[in-house]
Amino acid sequence: MNYSSKLIADAVAEFTRLPGIGEKTALRLVLHLLKQDEEKVKNFGDAVTRMRSEIKFCKTCHNVSDDEQCEICANNHRDHSTICLVESLRDVIAIENTNSYQGVYHILGGIISPIDGIGPEKLNIHSLMERIQSDEVKEVIMAISPTIEGDTTIFYISKKLKDSGVKVTTIARGISFGGELEYTDEMTLGRSIATRLPYENYLVKNPN
Amino acid sequence: MNYSSKLIADAVAEFTRLPGIGEKTALRLVLHLLKQDEEKVKNFGDAVTRMRSEIKFCKTCHNVSDDEQCEICANNHRDHSTICLVESLRDVIAIENTNSYQGVYHILGGIISPIDGIGPEKLNIHSLMERIQSDEVKEVIMAISPTIEGDTTIFYISKKLKDSGVKVTTIARGISFGGELEYTDEMTLGRSIATRLPYENYLVKNPN
Repeated sequence: MNYSSKLIADAVAEFTRLPGIGEKTALRLVLHLLKQDEEKVKNFGDAVTRMRSEIKFCKTCHNVSDDEQCEICANNHRDHSTICLVESLRDVIAIENTNSYQGVYHILGGIISPIDGIGPEKLNIHSLMERIQSDEVKEVIMAISPTIEGDTTIFYISKKLKDSGVKVTTIARGISFGGELEYTDEMTLGRSIATRLPYENYLVKNPN
Repeated sequence: MNYSSKLIADAVAEFTRLPGIGEKTALRLVLHLLKQDEEKVKNFGDAVTRMRSEIKFCKTCHNVSDDEQCEICANNHRDHSTICLVESLRDVIAIENTNSYQGVYHILGGIISPIDGIGPEKLNIHSLMERIQSDEVKEVIMAISPTIEGDTTIFYISKKLKDSGVKVTTIARGISFGGELEYTDEMTLGRSIATRLPYENYLVKNPN
């Protein structure tokens, strides 16, 4: 497209690099920003640039952080004896938004996927082992997606944790709340029967 | 949502101010940028900030521009005797992308809409009259949306241009290419019969 201004064309080109944003949407966003106060647009640009340049990663759990240690690891009210092992930052945000987990996290930074050339050495497994040795960790919860790669990762790490004396658990797989039996895949439905719970546990919010 | 980093939260908040971008999409964009090189993200932020702070508006036609005069007005190969009158920058981009107009533009900056408190004095009509008096303008093409406000604007301006000796035309209204008669509204279909063209004109790309 021809924008009769290189400044506009450059801004549109930058927006189209973002996922899910095509040229028409990019133009709409740029024209919207063009109508805003200069100060506001500067704030937008600065917030994005600063986010990338000043972000740190937590020394302990590899979560994004504004300091050396993230808010979660630095919080003494949380249960530091339970580590929830997740693939990425997105999963931390998703679990935090449930407001039902009080432990800490450890971000793997991916999952074992030989097809993509990601072996265990590329993940934050070494630092997890160090945490387990030095800290008073009692339980590691595997909160990893139930795909083939996810299950491989869980298998690999649980084997490494075997002799550490730490309890290894996985998040429950089963039928979603509001989900219908009829439309649930056989694998999930079969497993949900095999791993059925006493009704008392169903009623309790935190069975532990 | 809880992002465990103020930098991330700020960047997400800035993205959600854009039209059509909710919190989940904003987070997706921010996490995408987080994975990019610092340099690339800086380029993104700078392009957006610079676009707003350095943009100029063409003295002649009010189009966005990198200089005092926009690329279109500064182009001597274009026909400066024909002015296409449009509501906004978007319309210029749309018409430029057809690659079938060789004249110049004049951006009104809106249309007359008493309900929104926009009277003729708020539009770039005065500068249009000046252009017509001083320049060798032969034709003004009204490329304004066929709404009630649009038609009011066309009526107002054509009345002002009446004694100037300039030819006033409007872009053709009718059935879109690929459109079906059956689903065309009565107004458009009725007008398309009333303003029918000789078949020779239909075949010619530029009837003039």
